[in-house]
Amino acid sequence: MELVTIDDVRAAAKRIEGVAVRTPVVPCRWAEGLWLKPENLQPIGAFKVRGATNAVGALSDEQAAKGVVTHSSGNHGQALAYAANTRGIPATIVVPDVAPRVKIDAMRALGAELILVPPAQRLTATDELVAERGMALVPPYDHNDIIAGQGTIGVEMVADLPSVRSVLVPVGGGGLASGVAVAVKALRPDVRVIGVEPALAADAADSLAAGHIVQWTDEQRYRTSADGVRTNIVERTFAHLSRYLDGIVRISEDEIMSTVRRLALEAHLVAEPSGALAPAAFLHHRSELPDGPAVAIVSGGNIEPAMLRAILSDD
Amino acid sequence: MELVTIDDVRAAAKRIEGVAVRTPVVPCRWAEGLWLKPENLQPIGAFKVRGATNAVGALSDEQAAKGVVTHSSGNHGQALAYAANTRGIPATIVVPDVAPRVKIDAMRALGAELILVPPAQRLTATDELVAERGMALVPPYDHNDIIAGQGTIGVEMVADLPSVRSVLVPVGGGGLASGVAVAVKALRPDVRVIGVEPALAADAADSLAAGHIVQWTDEQRYRTSADGVRTNIVERTFAHLSRYLDGIVRISEDEIMSTVRRLALEAHLVAEPSGALAPAAFLHHRSELPDGPAVAIVSGGNIEPAMLRAILSDD
Repeated sequence: MELVTIDDVRAAAKRIEGVAVRTPVVPCRWAEGLWLKPENLQPIGAFKVRGATNAVGALSDEQAAKGVVTHSSGNHGQALAYAANTRGIPATIVVPDVAPRVKIDAMRALGAELILVPPAQRLTATDELVAERGMALVPPYDHNDIIAGQGTIGVEMVADLPSVRSVLVPVGGGGLASGVAVAVKALRPDVRVIGVEPALAADAADSLAAGHIVQWTDEQRYRTSADGVRTNIVERTFAHLSRYLDGIVRISEDEIMSTVRRLALEAHLVAEPSGALAPAAFLHHRSELPDGPAVAIVSGGNIEPAMLRAILSDD
Repeated sequence: MELVTIDDVRAAAKRIEGVAVRTPVVPCRWAEGLWLKPENLQPIGAFKVRGATNAVGALSDEQAAKGVVTHSSGNHGQALAYAANTRGIPATIVVPDVAPRVKIDAMRALGAELILVPPAQRLTATDELVAERGMALVPPYDHNDIIAGQGTIGVEMVADLPSVRSVLVPVGGGGLASGVAVAVKALRPDVRVIGVEPALAADAADSLAAGHIVQWTDEQRYRTSADGVRTNIVERTFAHLSRYLDGIVRISEDEIMSTVRRLALEAHLVAEPSGALAPAAFLHHRSELPDGPAVAIVSGGNIEPAMLRAILSDD
């Protein structure tokens, strides 16, 4: 399998310019040594606008005219709808019917066509649309253009914080971690890239330990509140992660929630549970990390208002 | 009176590099035409780190060694403590005893000496410290180095969003609005700079309408929830604002609160009430603003947790 290269990431950086926000790295006075990369400030509230914009930008005009389709638990769907809208092409999103309401509403508002199905039927429903309408499939992570787009975060982090010693990145399907690891290891092989997963959806940790993909069931993975990382890694992301990732940390549900709270009250950032994973690794698992300055990606902010209220009320 | 120039602002930009965060401008998909400048992401949770860092950086080594002192409702005090700490010099902060607890705790954590007094005694208590200890007074806004430091926001905004038509900036003592107006008008005279005040502390609006400073009492100004802008403008800021500001908008307390809520849930940014003023002008007073893209400064994020909880629970 051909892996993504730093040249792919550099090409992606040009395609996303002016569409994705060039987020800063933000020092945390309340957690010495931690810096945040606030990707929750992206137009759709998550980093996924980077990969989607790169993938849509890479389509030929002929392909683009037929539109794009994807299956997504939410943020990638929003990102693809946004990227398609920016280029002026149609987008259809196949969404698991358990996805948070806030994400479903957001995709409709971006003009995408939505098709709700039970989680297990996502892939077949998507394949049907590709066959019937000739739409281009842009999956959430199993695609080199997506991985290269997410990797632009890595380029920015090492440019903005030359003293960085480790980079903390959440792992769901593994597209973000793959892209960031490719970029960081190419530019700064001395910097450690650490994946972060919920303990309740630790398929990547198990897979890397076993040396082959360990499949967790939907039922197992859907236990975590971190709905953005309920997906299993796949061969493509496993190939990148086993080559480039230096380690992986497992986060409890309590650690996720307390980190969402601290990010709101101390960093002034609203994170969704998946978005709190990487900072949680620094706050709760420091002994498992390399010494020195760490940058943690706050991957998204699309949290249900009721959940945010509950977390803030939990004194 | 000598006004701040664009050269002063450019010099400030060099002094604050690496201390203040280079914040992006963030487009709001949920409010077409609005962009946010999230200064709540600064190290101390507010833009004031820019002015304080510039003022501390401009001190001679001899002056710096004696330390700095200020009176502040909170964010400027934190900023000065931070800037002094960064340069390794002592800081003493005179704080009104009604200041939010979260801000008092934050200044203590930065190693500053704190002196709590009733609001009306702030200035005299500060003067005593200058006389007794030879400390350098760094006031929150009545100082050209402070104004020049805050002005760096204006330079960044017009660089990052060339299509901008108006800039929305909260007005308390007027230092931020003065600096931003100087910078924007020097670089882009065609862009409108609009001040934003709480209707309950609209001394700048009254003063600009009257052509001279109209003094509101402490009692009047302390009615607003926006504790960061409870100060009256002074001759120095009045001189800048009457020359450079294009207009001013008054915001109700309800508008402030609903904007804090929308910023949290839609922009994923936690703003304090003062920090919500400028976006509130776009969301609630659009007809009073020029057409075209607007950038609103989210000036700070240091809100009391109980207030944030209450606002988010207000369905």
